[in-house]
Order: sequence, then C-alpha cells, then structure tokens
Amino acid sequence: MSVEKVHCLIIGSGPAGYTAAIYASRAGLKPVMYQGAQPGGQLMITNDVENFPGYPDGVMGPEMMEHFKAQATRFGADIRYGTISSVDFTGPVHKVTVDEKVVLEADTIIISTGAGAKWLGIESETRLNGRGVSACAVCDGFFFRGQEVAIVGAGDTACEEASYLSKLCKKVYMLVRKDKFVAASVIMQQRVLNTPNIEVLFSTETDEILGKEDVEGMRVRNNVTGETREIPVTGFFVAIGHKPNTDIFKGWIDMDENGYIKTIPGTSKTNVEGVFACGDAQDHVYRQAVTAAGTGCMAALDAERYLAAKEAVTA
Amino acid sequence: MSVEKVHCLIIGSGPAGYTAAIYASRAGLKPVMYQGAQPGGQLMITNDVENFPGYPDGVMGPEMMEHFKAQATRFGADIRYGTISSVDFTGPVHKVTVDEKVVLEADTIIISTGAGAKWLGIESETRLNGRGVSACAVCDGFFFRGQEVAIVGAGDTACEEASYLSKLCKKVYMLVRKDKFVAASVIMQQRVLNTPNIEVLFSTETDEILGKEDVEGMRVRNNVTGETREIPVTGFFVAIGHKPNTDIFKGWIDMDENGYIKTIPGTSKTNVEGVFACGDAQDHVYRQAVTAAGTGCMAALDAERYLAAKEAVTA
Repeated sequence: MSVEKVHCLIIGSGPAGYTAAIYASRAGLKPVMYQGAQPGGQLMITNDVENFPGYPDGVMGPEMMEHFKAQATRFGADIRYGTISSVDFTGPVHKVTVDEKVVLEADTIIISTGAGAKWLGIESETRLNGRGVSACAVCDGFFFRGQEVAIVGAGDTACEEASYLSKLCKKVYMLVRKDKFVAASVIMQQRVLNTPNIEVLFSTETDEILGKEDVEGMRVRNNVTGETREIPVTGFFVAIGHKPNTDIFKGWIDMDENGYIKTIPGTSKTNVEGVFACGDAQDHVYRQAVTAAGTGCMAALDAERYLAAKEAVTA
Repeated sequence: MSVEKVHCLIIGSGPAGYTAAIYASRAGLKPVMYQGAQPGGQLMITNDVENFPGYPDGVMGPEMMEHFKAQATRFGADIRYGTISSVDFTGPVHKVTVDEKVVLEADTIIISTGAGAKWLGIESETRLNGRGVSACAVCDGFFFRGQEVAIVGAGDTACEEASYLSKLCKKVYMLVRKDKFVAASVIMQQRVLNTPNIEVLFSTETDEILGKEDVEGMRVRNNVTGETREIPVTGFFVAIGHKPNTDIFKGWIDMDENGYIKTIPGTSKTNVEGVFACGDAQDHVYRQAVTAAGTGCMAALDAERYLAAKEAVTA
C-alpha cells in the first residue's frame, strides 16, 4: 500500500484552515488540506457577515469562504474533498487515515476542524436559521438593535450573550428550562438578574419559533404548569453550547472536559510535537471568524518554524 | 476644564485597532479611537498585501486600511485625528491626555499602538522601500521565490527569517556586522550555518542598496579590511529589530525588556483592570495583520465583558 507523504496537513476548511493554508503555501510548505464533512465550516450556514475586517459593506458567509479558498489555491494549497477518519500520533511522523482508506504521513498537522453549535432540534429553528434564528449573539446581535429578542440557555455563555444583547436590544427574554440556573456561575446569574431589560423565564421551553419568512415570535411552554403562550420577538438566539469537532483526536491530543483542544497559550502548539491547533476547535471564548483566522496564521508559522528547527537538527 | 467621558477608548489605528473598533461598535460600546501619529499603521507603508484572508487577488496596504476604517465608521466608531501624549492609570477610571491638551476619562482602554521596524538609515533603503526592500520576510518573501536575496541582522528573528527565505529563494546572503553572531541563540546560528543556500557574510555592512526602480543589488563593505564589493540581489530584507510604540505606557503597564506589553496569554488583558492590549504592541512573535486583527477582536470582547461585569457589580 502506497503512503503519501506531506510536509503539512491541514484538517478542516473554515477561516482558520484556509488562513493556515495561505500562510503555509506562501512559506513553501506545500500544504495539503482535507476539507472535512462541511467544506467552508460554520460560515457556510451564515448569511450576513459584517464583522470580518476587510469587508466594509459586509459579505455572505459562503462568498467569504470562496474568497479564502481562492486565495489559498492561488498560492498552491492542495485542497481536497475528504474527511480524516482516524489519526495515529505514536511516532515522529504523524499517520492519518482519510475516509477510512487512504493513509497519509505528515511531518506537521494543523487541526482546524472547528466546532458546531448545539441546536434545540425543532423544525422552525432550522427553517428560520439566518432569518432571525442565530447561535451567535456577538455575530448577529447588531442586526436586532432596538428590537425584542429571546435567548435559550442557562450556562455562563448564555448569560454572557444575554448581557451582550441587553445593550443592543429593547428587551431580552431568557428561556431557562429548569426552575433555576444550574450551570451558570453565581456572578453571571446576578448579572443577568440585575439587568432591567432581561426577563428570565424559568421552567420554560420552546414549543415553536413563529414566523413565515422571518422570526416574528415564539410559543413557549411552562413545563410545570403546561401552560403555553406566544411572545412576539424578531430574534431568537440559541446558546445551549457548542461541540468542538475533535472526536478523532481523543486519546492523542490534550483536551478540556468539553473536547476543546488545549494549546500552549499564545501559541498553536498542542501536547504532540508537530501538531498544531487553531480556530474554534481550541477556542470556546472568542469564537469569531477573525480570531480563528488569526490563530490559523499562527499555526502555519509555528509549523514552519518547527520544520525549520527539525531540518537543522537533522542536517 | 471639561473632561470628556468615554466607555471605550482605542489608541492606534492599525488592523488591531480598527478590528477592535468594529467589534466594540457593534457591541454598543460607542468607541472613540485616536489614530495616532501614523493613521493606518504599518500597512500604510506596505504595497502589496497578499496574505490577509478575504483578498484573493491581494490588496494595497493603504486601500485595505481604508476598508477597515470604513467598516468601523459604518458601525458608528468615532475616529479622530490625534495622538495620546500621556496616560494616568491610578484610579478605576483611566485618564488620558490627547496632544498634550484635551483630557479624556475612559472606562476601558484598548492599546493598539503597534510597532515599527528599525531601519539601517541609508538613503537607498528609503527610496527602494516596497521595491525590493522589506522588513518582513513572512509578508514579502514569496515575491522573491527562486531569486537571490539578502537579509541584514544577527538576532534570532533575523536567523528565523533567513531560514524562512532559504525555503523560497535560490540564495540568501546574511549580512552580520560583527565577526560572529552575538545576539542569536546557538541553535538558531546552527540552523542558519547548516542551511546550504544561506551564505553568512560576517564583519559586513551595507554601503548602499543598488537599483533605480527596483532593487538590483547591494554594495557591501567588510568592516575589518575596508574592502567593498557589489553583489546582485533582487530582495533586501532588514531584520535588525522592531520597536513597539509603548513609551507612554511605561511605569503603568507591565512590559518585557523590549517594551512589548505583557498580556495574560490567550487574552488581551494587561496588569491594569480595564486596559487591554492587542496587535504588534504586544506581539513580537507573529506580527501579521491577521493576527493583529484577531487580537483586536479579542480586546473588544474582553472590554465588553469587563464593562458588563462592572455594571452588574454596581447595579
């Protein structure tokens, strides 16, 4: 069985992966990228991107990812369809299986597999995604300024996002399934409860998000009394967590309890030599396209310097 | 004397500052930016930018900064001419003097004052800047692939950049003023000396960079024998260090021995509450426009969360 050898393998094709590909190509590393199950990443399901610097009039998420891809391709990045199904980081050369068949050996690996938002799983949520339904308050809150919105979730991130929205929006309904905050820290609970224009609805679940073309309201249900009511909102934010796409690295790469890859802070280095991580797979704090792109650049430069050092030792 | 109060003051207007302005505006922080002595920062003296993701065909540095500025302005950032001449971080509200006159009080401050490359100070270096003369191998090395280039410097960064260039270029002359490496670590010296296509010229200084429109060569002088000779090169890289623009923060903000601001790794937080730093003022490792932009976003989000927490405590 023939084994393809590559200098630099990039796993995943969001802003982090493509930026890594641009930098690695320009550094002469001849990177090979496998795009993964969702080529382009989370931006492919994002309508309007207004906060990526360089697009003064905004851009559609998929269009932006086309630009990134074209730029990486222009410098010679070898971008392929396919998903990494398993890895083996035992030796100094890292082995990788693509779609359970092809085997590659890579001197360096850049993990940019991203993360995905968790969703409630109701039909209206999917249908109205990008039409008032969002999983990112920092990205999309601005579109709803002066309006009434809802946010679902009860953890620290949900509280943080509710607080973020309260500065922009007239009113924020926060839907909490239990009869109290279970996951959030006391300080975050207090922050939310002390904000006059946040109304926390405890023991409340979402029956349906209402609206034909765009979100117009929601029907919520009190899970103690069974009572339902409709509340008009124009934005519906889901903040029940994210899941990093890091399952295939378990047992090889150090992660936190939620599966986020641990990097040495201020670098893209993981616990395995020659393996670097960037983007949302290692970031549960900022999670923006531009922060992902920044860390993608870091990973490519870290990989380049790692290879340069290794060759010097070998020489 | 009337004192203007602002929620969020951004000092400096490179990629980090403008990205912070975009995010802070969209978060409702009504940021005020003072552009500083060089509005737009180092990109204003950069011709072709090929590695900022989102510009598949490349962009001129000043044009890119116009885009960033337009985007920040669109969301309401208040962008002003003027330079911060001194700061006072004694109290919980941070005092700032603009052009030695106006005094501002800011709840949060984002430092994005950048850094500047050190130059040799010869006439031909200025005249041919952007026409073969560069202070950034990672940014511009790609333009000289397959060609012969020179790099001036003797520290670790110079060695790293020489090594970077050796992958792309046919030959790299490294000009070292002393008769040995003084500043570089042993491992970096070895890396350079073991690379076949790097020729280190010790005891060598640059008399002049040659070329009318573009760099065509250099005249170097051996400072022991006094002998001069001309060597044809098409690229001339200066890697004798950078200076972060952080003098006004000395005594207030923790810095390393070269004046780079220390942030808590993985965040933009400085040792002073409510003061955040991003971009090249706190980064001597990556120093790219996209990494600066990423940290600018982090600083705005850190500032937003800091303010939200403070208001919750006050409420």
